[in-house]
Amino acid sequence: MSSKSSTEVIIGGKMYTLSGYEGEEYLQRVAAYINNKINEFNDIEDIRRFSVDMKSVLVELNIADDYFKAKDRIEKLERELERKEKELYELKNDLISEQMKAETNEETARGLELQNKELMLQKVKLESALEEALLDKDTKKSGKK
Amino acid sequence: MSSKSSTEVIIGGKMYTLSGYEGEEYLQRVAAYINNKINEFNDIEDIRRFSVDMKSVLVELNIADDYFKAKDRIEKLERELERKEKELYELKNDLISEQMKAETNEETARGLELQNKELMLQKVKLESALEEALLDKDTKKSGKK
Repeated sequence: MSSKSSTEVIIGGKMYTLSGYEGEEYLQRVAAYINNKINEFNDIEDIRRFSVDMKSVLVELNIADDYFKAKDRIEKLERELERKEKELYELKNDLISEQMKAETNEETARGLELQNKELMLQKVKLESALEEALLDKDTKKSGKK
Repeated sequence: MSSKSSTEVIIGGKMYTLSGYEGEEYLQRVAAYINNKINEFNDIEDIRRFSVDMKSVLVELNIADDYFKAKDRIEKLERELERKEKELYELKNDLISEQMKAETNEETARGLELQNKELMLQKVKLESALEEALLDKDTKKSGKK
Protein backbone atom coordinates (compact mmCIF):
# COMPACT_ATOMS: atom_id res chain seq x y z
CA MET A 1 0.00 0.00 0.00
CA SER A 2 2.96 2.32 -0.33
CA SER A 3 2.59 3.40 -3.96
CA LYS A 4 -0.50 4.65 -5.74
CA SER A 5 -1.83 2.20 -8.30
CA SER A 6 -4.98 1.76 -10.33
CA THR A 7 -7.21 -1.29 -10.25
CA GLU A 8 -10.19 -2.25 -12.35
CA VAL A 9 -13.15 -3.64 -10.45
CA ILE A 10 -16.63 -4.67 -11.54
CA ILE A 11 -19.41 -3.51 -9.26
CA GLY A 12 -23.08 -4.10 -10.11
CA GLY A 13 -22.03 -5.27 -13.57
CA LYS A 14 -20.15 -2.08 -14.44
CA MET A 15 -16.39 -1.66 -14.60
CA TYR A 16 -14.73 1.08 -12.55
CA THR A 17 -11.09 2.05 -12.43
CA LEU A 18 -10.03 2.82 -8.88
CA SER A 19 -6.79 4.55 -8.11
CA GLY A 20 -5.40 4.71 -4.62
CA TYR A 21 -2.98 3.21 -2.18
CA GLU A 22 -4.96 0.04 -1.51
CA GLY A 23 -3.69 -3.18 -3.09
CA GLU A 24 -5.55 -4.89 -5.91
CA GLU A 25 -6.37 -7.97 -3.83
CA TYR A 26 -7.99 -5.88 -1.14
CA LEU A 27 -10.05 -3.85 -3.63
CA GLN A 28 -11.27 -7.04 -5.34
CA ARG A 29 -12.35 -8.41 -1.96
CA VAL A 30 -14.25 -5.20 -1.19
CA ALA A 31 -15.86 -5.24 -4.65
CA ALA A 32 -16.90 -8.90 -4.24
CA TYR A 33 -18.49 -8.05 -0.90
CA ILE A 34 -20.51 -5.18 -2.46
CA ASN A 35 -21.54 -7.40 -5.38
CA ASN A 36 -22.82 -9.99 -2.93
CA LYS A 37 -25.03 -7.36 -1.33
CA ILE A 38 -26.33 -6.24 -4.76
CA ASN A 39 -27.03 -9.85 -5.75
CA GLU A 40 -28.82 -10.55 -2.48
CA PHE A 41 -31.16 -7.63 -3.16
CA ASN A 42 -31.64 -8.61 -6.80
CA ASP A 43 -32.89 -11.98 -5.58
CA ILE A 44 -35.75 -10.28 -3.77
CA GLU A 45 -38.69 -9.72 -6.14
CA ASP A 46 -39.95 -6.56 -4.35
CA ILE A 47 -36.55 -4.89 -4.40
CA ARG A 48 -35.90 -5.68 -8.05
CA ARG A 49 -38.66 -3.22 -8.94
CA PHE A 50 -37.07 -0.39 -6.90
CA SER A 51 -35.49 2.59 -8.67
CA VAL A 52 -31.70 2.46 -9.22
CA ASP A 53 -31.42 5.24 -6.66
CA MET A 54 -33.37 3.36 -4.01
CA LYS A 55 -31.38 0.20 -4.71
CA SER A 56 -28.09 2.06 -4.19
CA VAL A 57 -29.35 3.53 -0.93
CA LEU A 58 -30.40 0.06 0.22
CA VAL A 59 -26.93 -1.29 -0.53
CA GLU A 60 -25.35 1.67 1.27
CA LEU A 61 -27.60 1.17 4.30
CA ASN A 62 -26.86 -2.53 4.36
CA ILE A 63 -23.09 -2.09 4.23
CA ALA A 64 -23.30 0.70 6.82
CA ASP A 65 -25.32 -1.67 9.03
CA ASP A 66 -22.50 -4.26 8.79
CA TYR A 67 -20.07 -1.50 9.72
CA PHE A 68 -22.11 -0.30 12.71
CA LYS A 69 -22.49 -3.87 13.97
CA ALA A 70 -18.73 -4.38 13.59
CA LYS A 71 -18.15 -1.12 15.51
CA ASP A 72 -20.41 -2.42 18.27
CA ARG A 73 -18.44 -5.65 18.40
CA ILE A 74 -15.19 -3.63 18.59
CA GLU A 75 -16.55 -1.68 21.57
CA LYS A 76 -17.57 -4.89 23.32
CA LEU A 77 -14.19 -6.51 22.64
CA GLU A 78 -12.36 -3.41 23.86
CA ARG A 79 -14.37 -3.42 27.09
CA GLU A 80 -13.72 -7.13 27.52
CA LEU A 81 -10.02 -6.61 26.89
CA GLU A 82 -9.96 -3.84 29.48
CA ARG A 83 -11.59 -6.17 32.01
CA LYS A 84 -9.02 -8.88 31.24
CA GLU A 85 -6.20 -6.35 31.64
CA LYS A 86 -7.55 -5.38 35.04
CA GLU A 87 -7.91 -9.03 36.01
CA LEU A 88 -4.33 -9.70 34.86
CA TYR A 89 -3.04 -6.74 36.86
CA GLU A 90 -4.79 -7.96 40.00
CA LEU A 91 -3.62 -11.54 39.48
CA LYS A 92 -0.03 -10.35 39.01
CA ASN A 93 -0.25 -8.48 42.30
CA ASP A 94 -1.74 -11.53 44.02
CA LEU A 95 1.03 -13.68 42.59
CA ILE A 96 3.73 -11.32 43.88
CA SER A 97 2.22 -11.27 47.37
CA GLU A 98 1.90 -15.09 47.38
CA GLN A 99 5.51 -15.40 46.23
CA MET A 100 6.59 -13.09 49.05
CA LYS A 101 4.51 -15.08 51.52
CA ALA A 102 6.03 -18.37 50.33
CA GLU A 103 9.51 -16.85 50.62
CA THR A 104 8.90 -15.46 54.11
CA ASN A 105 7.51 -18.80 55.27
CA GLU A 106 10.50 -20.58 53.76
CA GLU A 107 12.90 -18.24 55.58
CA THR A 108 11.03 -18.76 58.84
CA ALA A 109 11.22 -22.52 58.34
CA ARG A 110 14.93 -22.30 57.57
CA GLY A 111 15.57 -20.24 60.72
CA LEU A 112 13.58 -22.66 62.84
CA GLU A 113 15.45 -25.60 61.34
CA LEU A 114 18.79 -24.06 62.35
CA GLN A 115 17.46 -23.35 65.83
CA ASN A 116 16.24 -26.94 65.98
CA LYS A 117 19.65 -28.35 65.09
CA GLU A 118 21.30 -26.15 67.71
CA LEU A 119 18.80 -27.28 70.35
CA MET A 120 19.33 -30.94 69.48
CA LEU A 121 23.06 -30.47 69.83
CA GLN A 122 22.59 -28.81 73.21
CA LYS A 123 20.27 -31.62 74.24
CA VAL A 124 22.82 -34.31 73.32
CA LYS A 125 25.52 -32.43 75.25
CA LEU A 126 23.29 -32.02 78.28
CA GLU A 127 22.28 -35.67 78.15
CA SER A 128 25.87 -36.85 78.14
CA ALA A 129 26.81 -34.33 80.86
CA LEU A 130 23.93 -35.62 82.97
CA GLU A 131 24.88 -39.22 82.31
CA GLU A 132 28.42 -38.50 83.39
CA ALA A 133 27.29 -36.68 86.53
CA LEU A 134 24.99 -39.53 87.49
CA LEU A 135 27.67 -42.12 86.81
CA ASP A 136 30.09 -40.14 88.96
CA LYS A 137 27.55 -40.11 91.79
CA ASP A 138 26.96 -43.86 91.49
CA THR A 139 30.69 -44.60 91.45
CA LYS A 140 31.10 -42.55 94.59
CA LYS A 141 28.15 -44.30 96.18
CA SER A 142 29.56 -47.76 95.47
CA GLY A 143 33.01 -46.56 96.51
CA LYS A 144 31.63 -45.57 99.91
CA LYS A 145 30.18 -49.04 100.56
CA MET B 1 -35.94 -4.01 17.84
CA SER B 2 -38.69 -6.49 18.58
CA SER B 3 -41.51 -5.08 16.44
CA LYS B 4 -41.38 -3.99 12.83
CA SER B 5 -41.72 -0.22 12.38
CA SER B 6 -41.18 2.29 9.60
CA THR B 7 -38.82 5.23 9.77
CA GLU B 8 -38.25 8.11 7.41
CA VAL B 9 -34.65 8.98 6.71
CA ILE B 10 -33.03 11.49 4.38
CA ILE B 11 -30.05 10.19 2.45
CA GLY B 12 -28.31 12.29 -0.20
CA GLY B 13 -31.09 14.86 0.04
CA LYS B 14 -33.90 12.37 -0.74
CA MET B 15 -36.40 10.95 1.70
CA TYR B 16 -36.72 7.17 2.08
CA THR B 17 -39.15 5.21 4.21
CA LEU B 18 -37.42 2.26 5.78
CA SER B 19 -39.33 -0.53 7.41
CA GLY B 20 -37.66 -3.11 9.58
CA TYR B 21 -36.83 -4.19 13.08
CA GLU B 22 -34.16 -1.56 13.71
CA GLY B 23 -35.05 1.36 15.96
CA GLU B 24 -35.48 4.87 14.59
CA GLU B 25 -32.50 6.25 16.50
CA TYR B 26 -30.20 3.63 15.04
CA LEU B 27 -31.43 4.20 11.47
CA GLN B 28 -30.96 7.98 11.83
CA ARG B 29 -27.38 7.38 13.03
CA VAL B 30 -26.69 5.14 10.03
CA ALA B 31 -28.27 7.69 7.66
CA ALA B 32 -26.18 10.51 9.17
CA TYR B 33 -23.05 8.44 8.68
CA ILE B 34 -23.88 7.83 4.99
CA ASN B 35 -24.70 11.53 4.49
CA ASN B 36 -21.31 12.44 5.92
CA LYS B 37 -19.65 10.23 3.32
CA ILE B 38 -21.73 11.81 0.52
CA ASN B 39 -20.90 15.31 1.76
CA GLU B 40 -17.20 14.49 2.00
CA PHE B 41 -17.23 13.45 -1.66
CA ASN B 42 -19.30 16.47 -2.72
CA ASP B 43 -16.59 18.67 -1.23
CA ILE B 44 -14.09 17.25 -3.70
CA GLU B 45 -14.26 19.14 -7.02
CA ASP B 46 -13.18 16.12 -9.16
CA ILE B 47 -15.77 13.82 -7.65
CA ARG B 48 -18.61 16.33 -7.96
CA ARG B 49 -18.38 15.88 -11.74
CA PHE B 50 -18.73 12.08 -11.53
CA SER B 51 -21.91 10.37 -12.71
CA VAL B 52 -24.54 9.59 -10.05
CA ASP B 53 -23.70 5.94 -10.55
CA MET B 54 -20.00 6.41 -9.98
CA LYS B 55 -20.70 8.55 -6.91
CA SER B 56 -22.88 5.79 -5.41
CA VAL B 57 -20.20 3.21 -6.06
CA LEU B 58 -17.62 5.47 -4.40
CA VAL B 59 -19.83 5.84 -1.32
CA GLU B 60 -20.39 2.06 -1.25
CA LEU B 61 -16.66 1.39 -1.56
CA ASN B 62 -15.89 3.89 1.15
CA ILE B 63 -18.39 2.44 3.62
CA ALA B 64 -17.24 -1.10 2.76
CA ASP B 65 -13.66 0.04 3.42
CA ASP B 66 -14.71 1.25 6.91
CA TYR B 67 -16.37 -2.15 7.41
CA PHE B 68 -13.32 -4.13 6.28
CA LYS B 69 -11.04 -2.07 8.50
CA ALA B 70 -13.41 -2.65 11.43
CA LYS B 71 -13.38 -6.39 10.66
CA ASP B 72 -9.59 -6.30 10.72
CA ARG B 73 -9.66 -4.57 14.09
CA ILE B 74 -12.10 -7.22 15.37
CA GLU B 75 -9.72 -9.99 14.31
CA LYS B 76 -6.81 -8.25 16.02
CA LEU B 77 -8.81 -7.69 19.21
CA GLU B 78 -9.99 -11.30 19.21
CA ARG B 79 -6.41 -12.53 18.88
CA GLU B 80 -5.30 -10.18 21.65
CA LEU B 81 -8.15 -11.37 23.85
CA GLU B 82 -7.14 -14.97 23.22
CA ARG B 83 -3.57 -14.14 24.26
CA LYS B 84 -4.82 -12.47 27.44
CA GLU B 85 -7.02 -15.47 28.22
CA LYS B 86 -3.99 -17.74 27.87
CA GLU B 87 -1.92 -15.42 30.04
CA LEU B 88 -4.68 -15.37 32.66
CA TYR B 89 -4.90 -19.15 32.63
CA GLU B 90 -1.16 -19.47 33.14
CA LEU B 91 -1.13 -16.84 35.89
CA LYS B 92 -3.98 -18.58 37.69
CA ASN B 93 -1.99 -21.82 37.62
CA ASP B 94 1.11 -20.01 38.88
CA LEU B 95 -0.93 -18.43 41.65
CA ILE B 96 -2.32 -21.79 42.77
CA SER B 97 1.15 -23.36 42.87
CA GLU B 98 2.54 -20.36 44.81
CA GLN B 99 -0.37 -20.59 47.27
CA MET B 100 0.35 -24.29 47.75
CA LYS B 101 4.04 -23.54 48.23
CA ALA B 102 3.28 -20.85 50.81
CA GLU B 103 0.94 -23.23 52.62
CA THR B 104 3.45 -26.09 52.63
CA ASN B 105 6.17 -23.78 53.93
CA GLU B 106 3.82 -22.49 56.60
CA GLU B 107 3.00 -26.03 57.70
CA THR B 108 6.70 -26.93 57.79
CA ALA B 109 7.39 -23.83 59.90
CA ARG B 110 4.52 -24.70 62.23
CA GLY B 111 5.81 -28.26 62.67
CA LEU B 112 9.33 -27.00 63.36
CA GLU B 113 8.01 -24.49 65.87
CA LEU B 114 6.28 -27.26 67.84
CA GLN B 115 9.43 -29.39 67.71
CA ASN B 116 11.43 -26.39 68.96
CA LYS B 117 9.12 -25.82 71.90
CA GLU B 118 9.39 -29.50 72.82
CA LEU B 119 13.20 -29.38 72.56
CA MET B 120 13.38 -26.24 74.71
CA LEU B 121 11.25 -27.95 77.32
CA GLN B 122 13.50 -31.00 77.27
CA LYS B 123 16.53 -28.69 77.51
CA VAL B 124 15.18 -26.91 80.58
CA LYS B 125 14.42 -30.24 82.21
CA LEU B 126 17.88 -31.61 81.42
CA GLU B 127 19.50 -28.41 82.70
CA SER B 128 17.74 -28.62 86.01
CA ALA B 129 18.43 -32.38 86.29
CA LEU B 130 22.11 -31.70 85.63
CA GLU B 131 22.16 -28.84 88.12
CA GLU B 132 20.63 -31.13 90.73
CA ALA B 133 23.07 -33.93 89.99
CA LEU B 134 26.04 -31.56 90.20
CA LEU B 135 24.73 -30.02 93.39
CA ASP B 136 24.31 -33.49 94.87
CA LYS B 137 27.91 -34.32 94.00
CA ASP B 138 29.18 -31.06 95.54
CA THR B 139 27.17 -31.65 98.72
CA LYS B 140 28.65 -35.11 99.02
CA LYS B 141 32.12 -33.70 98.42
CA SER B 142 31.76 -31.03 101.09
CA GLY B 143 30.18 -33.60 103.44
CA LYS B 144 33.25 -35.77 103.04
CA LYS B 145 35.58 -32.97 104.14
